[in-house]
Amino acid sequence: MNDWTQLSAAEIAKDVRAGRMTARQSVEASLDRIRKTDADLIAFTTLTEARALQTADRVDARIAKGDDVGPLAGVPFAVKDLVDIAGVITRAGSAINMDNAPADADAPVITRLEAAGAILMGALNMGEYAYDFTGENDHVGSTRNPHDTERRPGGSSGGSGAATAAGMVPLTIGSDTNGSIRVPSSWCGLFGLKATYGRVPRSGTFPFVDSLDHIGPMARSASDLALALEAMQGVDAGDPVCVDRPACPAVSTLDKGVADLRIARGSGYFAPPDGPAKDALDRVCAALDVKLDADLPGAAAARASAALITAVEGAATHTEALQTRPEDFGRPMRDRLVAGALVPGIAYVRAQRLRRQFAEDAAEVFRHVDAILTPATPFPAPRVDSDTVMIDGQEQPYRAHIGIYTQPISFIGLPVVCVPVQNIAGHLPIGVQIIAPAWREDIALRIAYALEQSGTCAAPVALLKELPA
Amino acid sequence: MNDWTQLSAAEIAKDVRAGRMTARQSVEASLDRIRKTDADLIAFTTLTEARALQTADRVDARIAKGDDVGPLAGVPFAVKDLVDIAGVITRAGSAINMDNAPADADAPVITRLEAAGAILMGALNMGEYAYDFTGENDHVGSTRNPHDTERRPGGSSGGSGAATAAGMVPLTIGSDTNGSIRVPSSWCGLFGLKATYGRVPRSGTFPFVDSLDHIGPMARSASDLALALEAMQGVDAGDPVCVDRPACPAVSTLDKGVADLRIARGSGYFAPPDGPAKDALDRVCAALDVKLDADLPGAAAARASAALITAVEGAATHTEALQTRPEDFGRPMRDRLVAGALVPGIAYVRAQRLRRQFAEDAAEVFRHVDAILTPATPFPAPRVDSDTVMIDGQEQPYRAHIGIYTQPISFIGLPVVCVPVQNIAGHLPIGVQIIAPAWREDIALRIAYALEQSGTCAAPVALLKELPA
Repeated sequence: MNDWTQLSAAEIAKDVRAGRMTARQSVEASLDRIRKTDADLIAFTTLTEARALQTADRVDARIAKGDDVGPLAGVPFAVKDLVDIAGVITRAGSAINMDNAPADADAPVITRLEAAGAILMGALNMGEYAYDFTGENDHVGSTRNPHDTERRPGGSSGGSGAATAAGMVPLTIGSDTNGSIRVPSSWCGLFGLKATYGRVPRSGTFPFVDSLDHIGPMARSASDLALALEAMQGVDAGDPVCVDRPACPAVSTLDKGVADLRIARGSGYFAPPDGPAKDALDRVCAALDVKLDADLPGAAAARASAALITAVEGAATHTEALQTRPEDFGRPMRDRLVAGALVPGIAYVRAQRLRRQFAEDAAEVFRHVDAILTPATPFPAPRVDSDTVMIDGQEQPYRAHIGIYTQPISFIGLPVVCVPVQNIAGHLPIGVQIIAPAWREDIALRIAYALEQSGTCAAPVALLKELPA
Repeated sequence: MNDWTQLSAAEIAKDVRAGRMTARQSVEASLDRIRKTDADLIAFTTLTEARALQTADRVDARIAKGDDVGPLAGVPFAVKDLVDIAGVITRAGSAINMDNAPADADAPVITRLEAAGAILMGALNMGEYAYDFTGENDHVGSTRNPHDTERRPGGSSGGSGAATAAGMVPLTIGSDTNGSIRVPSSWCGLFGLKATYGRVPRSGTFPFVDSLDHIGPMARSASDLALALEAMQGVDAGDPVCVDRPACPAVSTLDKGVADLRIARGSGYFAPPDGPAKDALDRVCAALDVKLDADLPGAAAARASAALITAVEGAATHTEALQTRPEDFGRPMRDRLVAGALVPGIAYVRAQRLRRQFAEDAAEVFRHVDAILTPATPFPAPRVDSDTVMIDGQEQPYRAHIGIYTQPISFIGLPVVCVPVQNIAGHLPIGVQIIAPAWREDIALRIAYALEQSGTCAAPVALLKELPA
């Protein structure tokens, strides 16, 4: 059990299913790692220890009876604290939500993962109401990056990134509205999947921007993303945008290779200047022998429109609290919501119209290519004690740049796997986006798997000093 | 041929298919009636006479060869002037659009009707940019009601209502965003169909409020609505909200009777005060022996939200013209657009959220009933020389009341057939809405057909003094 933290979800499930490890042992190993590392990282906001141990014992009892407990047997996982856990207040990174009643039921994504044998360990820290790219949180403390605790983990799924990269659990659930799975995947050096908009139900999750919100997995291998997607995907009555589509055959197609795929390198808007993001993209493109390039026309306007829709829908969700208890929001959150509340409706409607046009134009590009590779973030994890980073040779305030490559993609709901390139800037990782056409998560996952098999991409557990037991 | 104006589309097609009348004779009869009656009514804005005669000759040539030219063989029809006709400027009731180039292709609804044998006669007058319930138009003159030319025809599909009620054509195409098919159907004493949102493609039509716009037929019989729906329905790539659904079996199910249907009378919000609207509803409910009642909870808020969304999306479409040439809008239009441009985005987003909730609540009501009957308008056609009517015993400005019963229904895209009750207030007709669950146009059409068969509802051609030939 010394190496438990290094195991992928697939490896844990294999051991548990084969009787080489009990689910209880797996959960205890997870609890042990959480206790030894989380004080420095602030990844967890709620640990559902008793529930996890009970669930593990039920899994073990079923295995003892000879039942098939599923492809995620005994795999500990945790969810961003905007996902409902029965009996727990869905904090969504805020102080305000702590006045709410506890959730009366688990969100469908939890139910589905547990139905596949996985075991919920608790809720994970996040940027307030998900309106964040850094992993900062004024209310419970900011999550730190396991690869360098003096750096940001990325957000808003910062706790998900840190818990996975620290080896506390092999699988976490995040949400992505403008990049909130892909940014922490990039900065924490993980595999992250934002499936097609409408593939995974958001029912039982606290909304941020209904038009743009996605729920998805973060893990240390491409196979684990495929396993999680297969468990989580599919229509749910509680989410009207989650439509009845044929299931994505993610696991069975992973090892098909990529020889038949027309893979393009992002150009134009998506071409990074010299620096770590370009180095990472170069490395991935070289490994795949990429010869094509492709741009998405209108990406800059698309990003601006995503930002505008985010501000308006965010403000619409929080109008009442903004009027009655503005002091209970963190400062950056409050300022953003006030700005959103001032945007005219006609600007919002025009942004939504642009979205439809951009989606049509992107679909046209994808008639000629099967995937587009771009950086996930323009730079690796910034230090917690500075508000600037070097961009294209100049020191610049970094926050407004973080989402440049992710926002245009979530804006039109395309599936993306973020893959980690390690040691790209000294000891830091950085991610590359593999963007596929709508409903073709399988393409992005196949490419991610090929990059993992070739050794180009990997997500090793961060080397953390463990606290004494 | 003396009785041509009295014939339904189905009757004309039957005669043309059987060789008792040529398509050319049918078109010439239509042209004759238009020439003799339209000067007083201002229903047509463009007469495509040469095209109509050529199309008629092609239909006749095909019939001579023994081809099946379709169920609308030789049926003249005309379209609201927001539907693209190749070579004609799509005016949409405005002065501003007259600076646009002519449309380079027919809208799919025209192509589909002509593929079923129908023959386009031209474009019909409408309220400016469809933002209207009365049939007034500052630019080309206001359409008059054929049943009483001193009264309004209803709008915004006022030309469609007048042309059909005057017997110029047996079938017209209108559009309905908040009631613009149902209001003129009510005031002109016609059968009108607003199908489920997404059933009929809006491609090639000038948009008003994308979230709410519908295209649909107006006619003098329920059967003609069914024939038109079957010709027009179905997915089209040019309209992303027009989805791939099983076709509605409108024609084959018309005469199934209504004994199996749970038909309810609208209550609560939908219960009219004493007056012609209540009298019409009483008459229809008595004919159907209606014993149930049903309300749609939240209808008042739904109507307010529909009005808000209309104002904002309308203003978003016309922002540029509003800034550069405001004097070219009619006054009421300009005032409404300015108001729409000032609505905050958060109010728009909240209105869209309420729409989803109202749709869910309405779906729950429709688990217990198959159709709900309500008035189509709160009063019959008002006089052109007055801005007030009697409502609930009091003389009131009428414009703000017109859409009270129609707006909550189009807001959530439910299918509605408007049926005419004649001589309800002296010589004037008034309509009743038959509202069915989403995608069940067949239910509303069956009820309309039963009411027509029993003589409760009918749409006789208006008695107009014809001009000398």
